[in-house]
Amino acid sequence: MGRDFKFLILCALGFLSFDAFAAKPPNMAEVLAASTSQDWRALDPENTLYVELPSGRVVIELAPAFAPLHVRNIKTLARAGYYDGLAVIREQDNYVAQWADPQNRHPIPAGVGKLPPEFDSPLPAHMIFTRLPDGDIYAPEVGFSGGFPLARSAALHRTWLAHCYGMVGVGRDLDVESGSGAEMYVVIGHAPRHLDRNVTLVGRVVKGVELLSGLARGSGEMGFYAKNEMPLPIRTIRVAADVPPAQRVNLEVMRTDTPAFAALIESRRNRPEEFFVVPAGHIDLCNVPIPVRERPLQSS
Amino acid sequence: MGRDFKFLILCALGFLSFDAFAAKPPNMAEVLAASTSQDWRALDPENTLYVELPSGRVVIELAPAFAPLHVRNIKTLARAGYYDGLAVIREQDNYVAQWADPQNRHPIPAGVGKLPPEFDSPLPAHMIFTRLPDGDIYAPEVGFSGGFPLARSAALHRTWLAHCYGMVGVGRDLDVESGSGAEMYVVIGHAPRHLDRNVTLVGRVVKGVELLSGLARGSGEMGFYAKNEMPLPIRTIRVAADVPPAQRVNLEVMRTDTPAFAALIESRRNRPEEFFVVPAGHIDLCNVPIPVRERPLQSS
Repeated sequence: MGRDFKFLILCALGFLSFDAFAAKPPNMAEVLAASTSQDWRALDPENTLYVELPSGRVVIELAPAFAPLHVRNIKTLARAGYYDGLAVIREQDNYVAQWADPQNRHPIPAGVGKLPPEFDSPLPAHMIFTRLPDGDIYAPEVGFSGGFPLARSAALHRTWLAHCYGMVGVGRDLDVESGSGAEMYVVIGHAPRHLDRNVTLVGRVVKGVELLSGLARGSGEMGFYAKNEMPLPIRTIRVAADVPPAQRVNLEVMRTDTPAFAALIESRRNRPEEFFVVPAGHIDLCNVPIPVRERPLQSS
Repeated sequence: MGRDFKFLILCALGFLSFDAFAAKPPNMAEVLAASTSQDWRALDPENTLYVELPSGRVVIELAPAFAPLHVRNIKTLARAGYYDGLAVIREQDNYVAQWADPQNRHPIPAGVGKLPPEFDSPLPAHMIFTRLPDGDIYAPEVGFSGGFPLARSAALHRTWLAHCYGMVGVGRDLDVESGSGAEMYVVIGHAPRHLDRNVTLVGRVVKGVELLSGLARGSGEMGFYAKNEMPLPIRTIRVAADVPPAQRVNLEVMRTDTPAFAALIESRRNRPEEFFVVPAGHIDLCNVPIPVRERPLQSS
């Protein structure tokens, strides 16, 4: 779809509410074109990571609301330069890309220890939650809150982030208290939801996941690179707030608590595009995209 | 897990039935080790494709039971050498790798035309079907038949292959009768189940999917490679039966209609490995692996 056409749609839809599509519901491009600035939020630089690879930048939105201790550790590690010079040591097909210190030579900075798990959190009494209507195989309820895919259980009084494509987790050993944030992985395959509530998730890749998913797979067990394979170096990992503003990328994430996002979900549950002769009528959590864009230039 | 340990488990489990694990159910490695030759089936060379890439061989098991017309076309195309010298022209992150004739220079051989869709089939009165117990977001019932993941609906009297990771489909245009098999795609991301019943699936990659999923993503719209990017060449695509036996790879696929496969499903629904503190208790269709192995040497 060309730029001019997008602009036309934007103009045409500017006068309509999302309810006005009852006859022919909008497709995702139309939902995005009809969105307003209130449907988007800027990333918080204090909770954004830039992973700098030789091939480009991966941007991660951290989720301090769900994993405050791990996010604090990770920011301390980033600010101490701990990650700089690490490598992607594992690339397991249809599963995860993982970075770590290949030779355990990087000293862990002071104040960073192993952490108790943050696999889930108490279900708050009031929670902004966009619930998906089609259920879930793994949890009683799933939906979105604060821009993240998550599950919850009223019976358990718990909520937890879900292992969808692009979600970022913290590696651990068998001991549930063995994770620190020094090793992280990114989901690059069909959602491994069995990891939910077994590993601490700390955020989501909002840009550049293809720089991690498009790597040659490791030939070792569990996708670890063998000795003759060259792991991809991690140049640096920085907290965006520590990067000079001119070097930041100004991304916006679509809010997940708006009528626009509800319209987006519907545009994916029942795709109105001519290609689809049998609309699915349903959608699973990890098939709902959470759109990200560069912040448009401010009009004066 | 070392080779010796595997052998020990094999010996220990040889005397037990799968029911004997009530106390501590087996993990997947143990299920595989305890399987017998009756739990596996060889690929039929007449319905196996070898896609030869510069990086190695991708093996596809075709599904003539579900898409007989398209499978016939594809074999005709392969035997005419149509695919030789094509390229992976599209690599869309979290979606598909697709090959086609980049410049439409390869003549379509005689007898290969556009086909009516084979999106689904009539539900047979008797069908060998291993049904998953945890339901599905997209279909009334899902499970396995003949080694493929599929869905079915008694109300619709239809059954159809499901778009799980590694499934192979036939590209088409808007017209549902525009597919021929000349273009194929492989799912390399979270299962795009909304494509079910909208595209004809023709098989599944049983070996080498990582040679397609581990490619740099295309920078063009929908993941098509831009002009300055080098699409990966397809050297040849051959029907395995046409390849000299010494050059074939003797793969076996685990049967999906056995107690061993039922035990495998259970080993993934509730992973007994010590790592998992909260077993999922459920599994979705596309998270069930269908194991493939090289055929063990025959004992005399």
